[in-house]
Amino acid sequence: MLSFVRFTSSKAAKYVPTSGVYPKGFVVGGIHCGVKKDGKSLDLAMLKNVYHEPATASAVFTKNKFKAAPVQVSRKILDNNNGNHINSIIVNSGNANAVTGKKGYEDAQAMVDATDKAAGNSESNSTLVMSTGVIGNLLPIDNILSGIPKLAESDLGSSHDHWIACAKAICTTDTFPKLVSKNFEIDGITYTLAGLAKGAGMICPNMATLLGFFATDAPISEDAIKVLVANAVARSFNSISVDGDMSTNDTIVGIANGAAGGQLIDLSKESKPKFDKLQEEFTSFAQQLAQLVVRDGEGATKFITINVKDAQSYSDAHTVAKTISNSSLVKTAMYGKDANWGRILCSIGYSEVEAIIPERTNVSFVPADGSAKLDLLVNGEPQQVDEERASEILEFEDLRIEIELGTGGGEDCEFWTCDLTHEYITINGDYRS
Amino acid sequence: MLSFVRFTSSKAAKYVPTSGVYPKGFVVGGIHCGVKKDGKSLDLAMLKNVYHEPATASAVFTKNKFKAAPVQVSRKILDNNNGNHINSIIVNSGNANAVTGKKGYEDAQAMVDATDKAAGNSESNSTLVMSTGVIGNLLPIDNILSGIPKLAESDLGSSHDHWIACAKAICTTDTFPKLVSKNFEIDGITYTLAGLAKGAGMICPNMATLLGFFATDAPISEDAIKVLVANAVARSFNSISVDGDMSTNDTIVGIANGAAGGQLIDLSKESKPKFDKLQEEFTSFAQQLAQLVVRDGEGATKFITINVKDAQSYSDAHTVAKTISNSSLVKTAMYGKDANWGRILCSIGYSEVEAIIPERTNVSFVPADGSAKLDLLVNGEPQQVDEERASEILEFEDLRIEIELGTGGGEDCEFWTCDLTHEYITINGDYRS
Repeated sequence: MLSFVRFTSSKAAKYVPTSGVYPKGFVVGGIHCGVKKDGKSLDLAMLKNVYHEPATASAVFTKNKFKAAPVQVSRKILDNNNGNHINSIIVNSGNANAVTGKKGYEDAQAMVDATDKAAGNSESNSTLVMSTGVIGNLLPIDNILSGIPKLAESDLGSSHDHWIACAKAICTTDTFPKLVSKNFEIDGITYTLAGLAKGAGMICPNMATLLGFFATDAPISEDAIKVLVANAVARSFNSISVDGDMSTNDTIVGIANGAAGGQLIDLSKESKPKFDKLQEEFTSFAQQLAQLVVRDGEGATKFITINVKDAQSYSDAHTVAKTISNSSLVKTAMYGKDANWGRILCSIGYSEVEAIIPERTNVSFVPADGSAKLDLLVNGEPQQVDEERASEILEFEDLRIEIELGTGGGEDCEFWTCDLTHEYITINGDYRS
Repeated sequence: MLSFVRFTSSKAAKYVPTSGVYPKGFVVGGIHCGVKKDGKSLDLAMLKNVYHEPATASAVFTKNKFKAAPVQVSRKILDNNNGNHINSIIVNSGNANAVTGKKGYEDAQAMVDATDKAAGNSESNSTLVMSTGVIGNLLPIDNILSGIPKLAESDLGSSHDHWIACAKAICTTDTFPKLVSKNFEIDGITYTLAGLAKGAGMICPNMATLLGFFATDAPISEDAIKVLVANAVARSFNSISVDGDMSTNDTIVGIANGAAGGQLIDLSKESKPKFDKLQEEFTSFAQQLAQLVVRDGEGATKFITINVKDAQSYSDAHTVAKTISNSSLVKTAMYGKDANWGRILCSIGYSEVEAIIPERTNVSFVPADGSAKLDLLVNGEPQQVDEERASEILEFEDLRIEIELGTGGGEDCEFWTCDLTHEYITINGDYRS
């Protein structure tokens, strides 16, 4: 049955930070409340705004037609509040509360109500809720409702350990918790961004779920945070692929409380320079977090950046990059350390992007050690590939594949994916045996 | 390096016919001409119309932007002839003549010219050409051009053995040749359909290629055969998936010479009943052939029919079926013999079809032995699944998954796919090691 991996992977040592910087005015934490069956793994996470001003928030939700109950509830709350007065986030792992009908919806709402109360939010429906884990089962809602006040009273804080606990508490089959934080400066004021995510673990009897949130102490208007989060997610969590499946629960939230001070950043002309800087910070931050999800892709041995250049439009670049990233043939070739330009070219060709000109298309491998790139296809002509050099490049865990479309449109895109391995099949095909 | 499987698989015994019925007025054959490196495997196939009337033909080609030279040449010939006066087909295997520039195009045209001459076609450009195999290498064109007259003079015939040789000569990594034939009757006249295809073998350094043609001795006008082939391919070769990749060379041709007599079947009102009957025969025939390609999918252990019912439109039904068929999570679950309705539902949900109503969606497994079906999801509610019964059903090689969308639109679709296995990864990831 369902087993949750302890965080002992070699990747954990490499990708879990031992310290961090955390935004003012937020406390977080994670406890075991009794969703996960082992009786000890963290399975309930909370973020609470403790600044005296209410926070603004925005989210990007799954486009799946079968939206889990927490997605429906959170979306409604955000819509009704117009992204304002969101003061806490509650997440359980171990059960996705998906395909659970009316009772599932009530349970999600009960989690919101309990958190509003425990967090002392002055208004109702000031909490966003997320769930991840098995689908088709009702939540052990009593355990969760007992856990919420306990977590809020005794286990929240703003230390690195609190953030790590929070990151662990949203994990399911992830082999390491994903936590990123950083400082940045706007007009002499230092702001902080911290965020966490859980990745592409597909476990019986359910599916990949991407969950995450990031918080900042910058002061951001509700309409500005909407744009910031949407753009950041488009170029990060919506530009990664493990196996192309999209779950019923996928949710990424951005939240801002303004605790670090400074003037409100909104969509006005005067705010534009600050907004642009913030967008840059949000996007690169979300990319860092999203890339950790790819690194922890099931069975992954390779981290591949697909870099499409000079497309007619960003949407074209994104479609080409996504198509390559989802090709089983490309992904198995990378696993096999094979410089198979034919499969890359083939997937570019069936991406259904009109503005592709075979005789202007270039494909090369950019080695992870900064040495010279290796051209595979130049202006549509296959190159005599130095197989030894190709092998060297493919020995690295990281690889960048550059696709120059030469359309003159000048639009670029980066997309991150992993390889398709025996281990992936074992995890997803054999877990019951 | 590239190795071509000898036809010794257990599937060969099961799926290769030991006799057949073949259309009048066509001769076929296959020889080794020196494309495949082992010096003996058949690698050149020909079909020739020997009836005193010219044949009509139509084709469906790959939509890949990188179209191989033979695709470009054949398409031009069909367009220029408006589908009439097509009297022969020449196919080589072992080299796809793809991404080979101007010389590749000249080579494909040279194959056409040589075949027109060797077949004694009265007009030039009466031949369609196809190639399959490695990409990025020029054809050993001298070997092919010497082979064509030899094949035309001494190795063509209409016996079962000739058709088998022809089917073998288009194979690459297929584990068995794919040949289907049958009789049918229209207005008291017996007509015959025979066809062959090669399947989804992805070999270094190239990609899956789907090739095939079918021939009938029914008299069909050039505009009617266009519709017949397009419709048949849409519901057969365009309704199968091994790994979702689409090659530079995919081509399916239908050809008709009228040698069995009867009135010309065209798009007129008078012809309608005959045309409809023909459409039925063409479609079910093409489905049989396409299903053999799925059965021979790389590493496949399961043959899965995805049956979407009561969609708003055929296109919706097709999109949902295709999305399920391409989901790595669904495919690995089938490999793991796991009744994982969650993954099926999830892929329905992200298919981007608007007219999906979660609370009207039903999913069930239909066992291959004709016993009662097993409901997994009824009106969006997960069922308590009898795991033992599910295991029984999933022990069969064949499985039908029924998805009832309940939109009231009444449109149905069948799609065929296979599972995703360790063996697939080994074939596509490890072949160089």
